[in-house]
Amino acid sequence: MQRHFASDNNAGVHPEVLRAIADANAGHSAAYGADTYTARAESRFREVFGEGTETFFVFGGTAANALAIGQLTHSYEAIICADTAHINVDECGAIEATAGRKLIVVSAADGKIRPDMLERALADRGDVHRVQPRVLSISQATEYGTLYEVEELRALCDFAHSRGLLVHMDGARLANAAAALRSDLRALTRDVGVDVLSFGGTKNGLMGAEAVIFFDSRLSTGFVFLRKQMMQLGSKMRFLAVQFEALLADDLWRRSAAHANEMAALLAEQTRALPGLSITQPVQTNAVFARFEPAAIRRLNDSYRFSMWNPATSEVRWMTAFDTTAEDVRAFARAVADALA
Amino acid sequence: MQRHFASDNNAGVHPEVLRAIADANAGHSAAYGADTYTARAESRFREVFGEGTETFFVFGGTAANALAIGQLTHSYEAIICADTAHINVDECGAIEATAGRKLIVVSAADGKIRPDMLERALADRGDVHRVQPRVLSISQATEYGTLYEVEELRALCDFAHSRGLLVHMDGARLANAAAALRSDLRALTRDVGVDVLSFGGTKNGLMGAEAVIFFDSRLSTGFVFLRKQMMQLGSKMRFLAVQFEALLADDLWRRSAAHANEMAALLAEQTRALPGLSITQPVQTNAVFARFEPAAIRRLNDSYRFSMWNPATSEVRWMTAFDTTAEDVRAFARAVADALA
Amino acid sequence: MQRHFASDNNAGVHPEVLRAIADANAGHSAAYGADTYTARAESRFREVFGEGTETFFVFGGTAANALAIGQLTHSYEAIICADTAHINVDECGAIEATAGRKLIVVSAADGKIRPDMLERALADRGDVHRVQPRVLSISQATEYGTLYEVEELRALCDFAHSRGLLVHMDGARLANAAAALRSDLRALTRDVGVDVLSFGGTKNGLMGAEAVIFFDSRLSTGFVFLRKQMMQLGSKMRFLAVQFEALLADDLWRRSAAHANEMAALLAEQTRALPGLSITQPVQTNAVFARFEPAAIRRLNDSYRFSMWNPATSEVRWMTAFDTTAEDVRAFARAVADALA
Amino acid sequence: MQRHFASDNNAGVHPEVLRAIADANAGHSAAYGADTYTARAESRFREVFGEGTETFFVFGGTAANALAIGQLTHSYEAIICADTAHINVDECGAIEATAGRKLIVVSAADGKIRPDMLERALADRGDVHRVQPRVLSISQATEYGTLYEVEELRALCDFAHSRGLLVHMDGARLANAAAALRSDLRALTRDVGVDVLSFGGTKNGLMGAEAVIFFDSRLSTGFVFLRKQMMQLGSKMRFLAVQFEALLADDLWRRSAAHANEMAALLAEQTRALPGLSITQPVQTNAVFARFEPAAIRRLNDSYRFSMWNPATSEVRWMTAFDTTAEDVRAFARAVADALA
Repeated sequence: MQRHFASDNNAGVHPEVLRAIADANAGHSAAYGADTYTARAESRFREVFGEGTETFFVFGGTAANALAIGQLTHSYEAIICADTAHINVDECGAIEATAGRKLIVVSAADGKIRPDMLERALADRGDVHRVQPRVLSISQATEYGTLYEVEELRALCDFAHSRGLLVHMDGARLANAAAALRSDLRALTRDVGVDVLSFGGTKNGLMGAEAVIFFDSRLSTGFVFLRKQMMQLGSKMRFLAVQFEALLADDLWRRSAAHANEMAALLAEQTRALPGLSITQPVQTNAVFARFEPAAIRRLNDSYRFSMWNPATSEVRWMTAFDTTAEDVRAFARAVADALA
Repeated sequence: MQRHFASDNNAGVHPEVLRAIADANAGHSAAYGADTYTARAESRFREVFGEGTETFFVFGGTAANALAIGQLTHSYEAIICADTAHINVDECGAIEATAGRKLIVVSAADGKIRPDMLERALADRGDVHRVQPRVLSISQATEYGTLYEVEELRALCDFAHSRGLLVHMDGARLANAAAALRSDLRALTRDVGVDVLSFGGTKNGLMGAEAVIFFDSRLSTGFVFLRKQMMQLGSKMRFLAVQFEALLADDLWRRSAAHANEMAALLAEQTRALPGLSITQPVQTNAVFARFEPAAIRRLNDSYRFSMWNPATSEVRWMTAFDTTAEDVRAFARAVADALA
Repeated sequence: MQRHFASDNNAGVHPEVLRAIADANAGHSAAYGADTYTARAESRFREVFGEGTETFFVFGGTAANALAIGQLTHSYEAIICADTAHINVDECGAIEATAGRKLIVVSAADGKIRPDMLERALADRGDVHRVQPRVLSISQATEYGTLYEVEELRALCDFAHSRGLLVHMDGARLANAAAALRSDLRALTRDVGVDVLSFGGTKNGLMGAEAVIFFDSRLSTGFVFLRKQMMQLGSKMRFLAVQFEALLADDLWRRSAAHANEMAALLAEQTRALPGLSITQPVQTNAVFARFEPAAIRRLNDSYRFSMWNPATSEVRWMTAFDTTAEDVRAFARAVADALA
Repeated sequence: MQRHFASDNNAGVHPEVLRAIADANAGHSAAYGADTYTARAESRFREVFGEGTETFFVFGGTAANALAIGQLTHSYEAIICADTAHINVDECGAIEATAGRKLIVVSAADGKIRPDMLERALADRGDVHRVQPRVLSISQATEYGTLYEVEELRALCDFAHSRGLLVHMDGARLANAAAALRSDLRALTRDVGVDVLSFGGTKNGLMGAEAVIFFDSRLSTGFVFLRKQMMQLGSKMRFLAVQFEALLADDLWRRSAAHANEMAALLAEQTRALPGLSITQPVQTNAVFARFEPAAIRRLNDSYRFSMWNPATSEVRWMTAFDTTAEDVRAFARAVADALA
């Protein structure tokens, strides 16, 4: 049984999560979230993020983002995001197709947006021919595995709010960010001014569950209907809810994410000095971006799955997961060395 | 531990399905359906429904219907369905909101459409001010638990095709229909002319998985992109796929559905003669529709969850599931009798 | 030059309107409604309907309805309308396709909705699987040419408001209604509780212009952006605005509509007694609905265009316009008599 | 009466067009395009662009673009366009909102796309997480008033076709382009490989009419329904059709466009040498882009309306129209000189 480095969603389900699912499989339970498991999980989220937190479970990350953003905007309002953002690149136009919203894309070399990048997009406010910016969407960690520091987040949220923008965070890998920053989840989100969070579970050891979390309940009015209409209301909701309950119990989220981060750090350490290879982004969470020659990439691909990030620049992405072992990493690093040799 | 009669989706996961999920949790697997589990499950569907069958797993039944119908139509094309259809009543406008399509609703007292009901909708063909009928969507079993006979299906599909309509079947409870009719799945779908099938799993003991099945692969061109865009592409797809593999193995689907049907028959038998109660629809699958006085309904509701189908007519729906026992039914029937007394 | 009875939109432009257009063709004028002509026309609408009235010109009636309704609703909110409503039958699914909203259709034999028809649709409020009724849309005059009395309108609006519904009026032929009821425009709309009005111009002698009119400016927030996005912002807006200015000047709207109404009354009078013909709706505005045998309909169609309303019942619609003359009507009535002979 | 330099849509209606409208106002005419005026105008377009040309009149340019592009694509297919494109910048997200399509934007300093700019967008073909490029949309003349040469167009269309892209041309100012290049309309569109054209009329002296023109009738299947559904089917269509008939008669389109182009050339000539002012784009059609200091811009704005193109770079746009006179230009150039002094 070989572990790959293609994505953290290539990993399976954490045993503690699987056990929680099995334990929940007892008798009948009200459908569509009107069950006690769901109530308990929602309550856990209120403990983690504070009073007034409204949590809604959905099936996938694309949905979490599209529904959150659809909820916050009118059709003529726009979302500012980085060109690297998952919502811009990797969701097959879900926001455009399901919500009809336009993204205003700003160029962000390391996946991070800074306040000054927003000025141009904001200059068109009030022009009837232009969509009206309403949401700033940022990813923490970014799609490059890089991180916003707490103070950066606060400054960005403050700036956004001062310009009438709401802040959405794509937290598909928020756990990895919090683990890396030795922060708790609330300190990186609600406390710095994030309004709505897509909180990822699947990439951190769940079978398949994500959460849309509103920190101001006035923003979530009617969201139950939107979730159903957008085909994200699970009928046997308890099996989504208990996954999150397990993830939040005993800090499983942090243990899993911290481990994945360490494995990425180990992989970077083991490969950084290899001749012909350069690591192109700071390794802050569970991703390593590396550039080396196409022929070596092909050789490595014979034995391992990983992601060709940018064929034009010969850049690859390697990701670690909760179940990646140090042995897996060392074996892979040797294969990288062999491929380069 | 009490079992209710609210819906077959109040039941949990069949143990054989849960075991299949646990067994699939081994090591890394390519995401988004590029894994061997998914290939195997798709292959099983080809065995069941024949060559050329194209199967796509999605998270829920509303999505299965909305995506199937969106795939078959242009925005100005319409879907003819019964007023009782799940797509019309219970999907919170998903088709309208995500695909922008209009439903043309025909009145169907028992949930079944007959060819002559379609004439009026077809009369507007070619009128530029009218949406153009393109899909006939039928439910088997219907939302009333009633059934189309094989010959009825064939006649309806033939008629639809003769008028340039494609046929979509909402088969959320197709297993119950096939069990009741002692038919196999193909004989009720592809063989009678159904073009696209929403094949239900969740209501028949899966944790949460449905399938969109095309019997002519020309109809499914591009559907992989639509599924992703419509937020229904599971990243850890293996855990959807193995649910279906388990359901199709050893005819689990038939065993579970036949049992649920028997339990409904038993419930009808036990309650039919009660004074003040009338059963309003033929009990052909796993649903019993009954009418009795509001006060008795409220009393019964003190101890059991079930669905108030139509407050105006004081009609309720009772549903059985794969795990409903004869003891559950008898205890419930006694409670009904008590409530009526 | 022959005048037909197919629709009031078969007529051309009233000479006073055409003159206003020509007069406005002087030099440069700011585009997109930032011109003095538009300001003047908007101001005229405020005089007619009262302070706080917000008026937006659009190109066509389908757009007026779809934009008004889209503005008032979230995607999961629904519109209750009559089965006969233009928005349900004759707009090719514009509301579903452009706004993604679902219509909840109630059966209305004469095109008019009564409060008791709304109860069933309102019973599903709060059920997460159902769209949530938010707007009642009524037509005045109806698509059958019938009328709501002032008191009927008031009772219906009061009822709607008491149930949390906003009221939209499709006033494509509001002028005909007001002329018939000897009412002013405000008394039939704002004063009885209508929230948003689609005010028709094209069917009453304009070249092509409709208005969306909000009586509470809080309801129109952001509508300027929606109008642009929905492709209804005219660049040379002055030529839309002056059409309405002409229509409101010297009560042209009433003179034209009253004349059309009289011509319909004359047509009904001249044909009512013909053997083999029955008039199927009260003739209250500028439409006559008649039923007679198909062969006679075909004979009449050899020399005149008119609308086959319902082939199944052999019912036709005849409409009169601002420019229909008594001679036109008498000639047509003779042709009807000949066709029936 | 003062003429401004804000936009060619600040001009009114060419007298020949207004006369055609008045002449068409005779008696009844079938609505929605089933009239002889429309047939005649469509026929004129077939003469201009060749057999098989299918022409559909719509109200505005945003609609022409959005409908053309919606017609050519599935929801998961994308449109590649320049960052400067009207569809990206100035249509308030109409394509995203009404068709649900995503734009893939490439940076184009002078508004023109070259084949090599398309490679990166095409690299994602087949990736299920990405929208699939299907249409290349270009503007001729561009939003900067610059032009593609005939050979550039041919090479670009050939490249696009070789990669499975269809080509849409936003020809809001195609007349200006053809006049400048001394070309006919067909030579710049169908003959070089354009598949679908938005042909502008309003900016070239019409009251308000645009046309969507398909050069391959297989691409226009069902477009009549889409036009109605997208709220662009004029009821009194004759008044749109005759505007185009007038525009195509006696080469009015060329006379008007050539004159506007000359006026822009004159304006560039009269201002180019002014100290403190630089003209930032080649003046090839009827637009002049100039940069000068903000205080002078404000002074000039006291007496003239024009467009602040980019506040960040202090760049303005001046446009001329069919009715701009040499005296207008000279007076304006003097005002510019005064403002700069």
